[in-house]
Amino acid sequence: MNLPHGFRFGGFFAGVKKNTSKRDLSLVVSDVDATAVGMFTTNKVCAAPVQVCRDRLPTARARAIIINSGNANACTGQKGLADAKEMTSIVARGLAIDASQVLVCSTGVIGRPLPMEKIRPGIESLIPTIADDDQSFHVATQGIMTTDTRPKASSRTIKTPEGEIRIVGFAKGAAMIGPNMATMLAFILTDAVAPADELTTHIKRAVDRSFHSISVEGHTSTNDSVILLANGVSGASANKAGKAFADALDEVAMDLAMAIVDDAEEATHRLTIDVVGTRTEAEARLIAKAVADSPLVKTAVFGNDPNWGRICSAAGYSGVEFVETDLSLRVNGVLLYDHGMPTSFDPVAEHDRMKAKREVDIELIFELGTARCRFWSCDLSTGYVRFNAEYTT
Amino acid sequence: MNLPHGFRFGGFFAGVKKNTSKRDLSLVVSDVDATAVGMFTTNKVCAAPVQVCRDRLPTARARAIIINSGNANACTGQKGLADAKEMTSIVARGLAIDASQVLVCSTGVIGRPLPMEKIRPGIESLIPTIADDDQSFHVATQGIMTTDTRPKASSRTIKTPEGEIRIVGFAKGAAMIGPNMATMLAFILTDAVAPADELTTHIKRAVDRSFHSISVEGHTSTNDSVILLANGVSGASANKAGKAFADALDEVAMDLAMAIVDDAEEATHRLTIDVVGTRTEAEARLIAKAVADSPLVKTAVFGNDPNWGRICSAAGYSGVEFVETDLSLRVNGVLLYDHGMPTSFDPVAEHDRMKAKREVDIELIFELGTARCRFWSCDLSTGYVRFNAEYTT
Repeated sequence: MNLPHGFRFGGFFAGVKKNTSKRDLSLVVSDVDATAVGMFTTNKVCAAPVQVCRDRLPTARARAIIINSGNANACTGQKGLADAKEMTSIVARGLAIDASQVLVCSTGVIGRPLPMEKIRPGIESLIPTIADDDQSFHVATQGIMTTDTRPKASSRTIKTPEGEIRIVGFAKGAAMIGPNMATMLAFILTDAVAPADELTTHIKRAVDRSFHSISVEGHTSTNDSVILLANGVSGASANKAGKAFADALDEVAMDLAMAIVDDAEEATHRLTIDVVGTRTEAEARLIAKAVADSPLVKTAVFGNDPNWGRICSAAGYSGVEFVETDLSLRVNGVLLYDHGMPTSFDPVAEHDRMKAKREVDIELIFELGTARCRFWSCDLSTGYVRFNAEYTT
Repeated sequence: MNLPHGFRFGGFFAGVKKNTSKRDLSLVVSDVDATAVGMFTTNKVCAAPVQVCRDRLPTARARAIIINSGNANACTGQKGLADAKEMTSIVARGLAIDASQVLVCSTGVIGRPLPMEKIRPGIESLIPTIADDDQSFHVATQGIMTTDTRPKASSRTIKTPEGEIRIVGFAKGAAMIGPNMATMLAFILTDAVAPADELTTHIKRAVDRSFHSISVEGHTSTNDSVILLANGVSGASANKAGKAFADALDEVAMDLAMAIVDDAEEATHRLTIDVVGTRTEAEARLIAKAVADSPLVKTAVFGNDPNWGRICSAAGYSGVEFVETDLSLRVNGVLLYDHGMPTSFDPVAEHDRMKAKREVDIELIFELGTARCRFWSCDLSTGYVRFNAEYTT
């Protein structure tokens, strides 16, 4: 992996997670001050580390991100805030920087105090191990995992007149995927030169098209965080790279978002939902999200059922103004519903086509305007319900 | 059952449903002109009979409601509209009244033309069988069923200075509960004297507190209809009965709504969600609905898991402005979360308490104001997913 220059990575097993020997701490360090911006959960119930990061971002002086898995440090009150800040202080002491230059994220069980007696020595042991090689990066991608079945990473390199710019990202989770396991976290690092206001524009666009366009079950977590660091070590400016930089960043974010949907608990299908021809993109998104979140659509897809009635009626209750003859629907490229009426398609053939592959393409076609959006979701399986029911607090 | 005077009922097997000998037609007739009002689905994709009823209501001259199950007559275009109107014409001819005095509802599979060759003779055979006895009413409650496991009916009688007023209601379904089976339908009939504007006020209030306060999976159907008829045969005025009439009507609507939640497909728990202490009732409802619709909350309840984290975080993404220390939570009367922090409750005892009974009481307590609401939902079971996945169009 072509890692951005001037970053070091590490992961460690501190024992936060019970009954497992999986890594539960990750650290990212920039060798020089980096510009940093973040986007966080809109949930009113939000975790202590989210509050700490919100306070510290944006900044031009970020040096590190410390992340623990196994415990979300959410609904933990003043002690939780003090613990989150202490995590940043331990890193700061070890790196001889200021605590305000360190960001912190947590993911895992809600409502339990962080086991600081494990985290303190864990961070102290982790710091000397960080390095800038692929193996260290890989270990960092593992330390943030909870119910993820595999680490999620993506990278792009672009050539610019001022030299190469490298972007790498890693992520975990899918919405609020697990039993009390809150969160999706994503970290994107680049060695481009970019001021905070530019980065803010970039992160908003990239997140809207990726993490804001996926849904597993529509339950916004308490810890969702996306953090973007640009340390400028390449000497090449993101601004001069222009669209190439924006595209590369979007692609990394998109790769990570897709990896999350594809790792959604017990899902058997990925839904790609295109809504085209609405008056505004906001309308397209409302419709896409209604379809993406409908348990009846999701169970139908699990059953390989080309159930146009559930899809069209989900669009109908999205809140967007239309009449039913405005709507046509394609599933896997086949027209099932044409201006308010079902077509004479072959349901058995469509069932077989859905069954044959993991991807399902759903296209809702309007002729009200020229706006559009693309959204991703997954199906709802008996396995998901079992997985999320069997866990007991 | 103390049926309202001046109404006759009937049900019939016309063969609309495949592979079953269950009744699929129901008829309600008022012997005299009745005031009628209705409330219908907000789905932009709405069935032909809904369009016909919307055009004809409110009215002071209603005489009959004809209902078929097994086919929703939704997404059926101009032919669907013609079929719905023809159903009312057949009834009108049989009763020697005007077609505009007949209302029509359908429920069942979406997107298939009504089998009018079965429905026409079915209605003609049904008309002579109607009567005002309990057995005829019971048969009418059966003719509207789709995936319902039992008929749903409720009645109240109130004494007024002008004599007794009787109210009876019957209903089917639960939101969009079944495989392509769209709909909840409810019919409430009274022999009170009441003009349309009064009835409109009554139906809105009663529906807000009952059918608008339940959710099975949050998927608004194409056919939802609640119709209220008052034929005045008792000679007693609803207005003079005042609060007693309003309360009795609310109770009938509530009984039917509860019967729908309790018959929700494969559910094992009924959730009663109270949100108290918000600034407005609208805020309370937003929070209640977010909790009621969260698949993570619903699977936790299926697993008898007192998972306060999922409940509180669902409240957090409802869109209502609050900070987490504003929120406390009781489940089955036990405080699990106190002003932003979990309590030291016994999770095993709470698990056992949830497992021991079908009802689960969830109370989200704010101190932001004095508004409140009550909402009902059910859990999400592996059986629900299997049931809704295994059906293929």
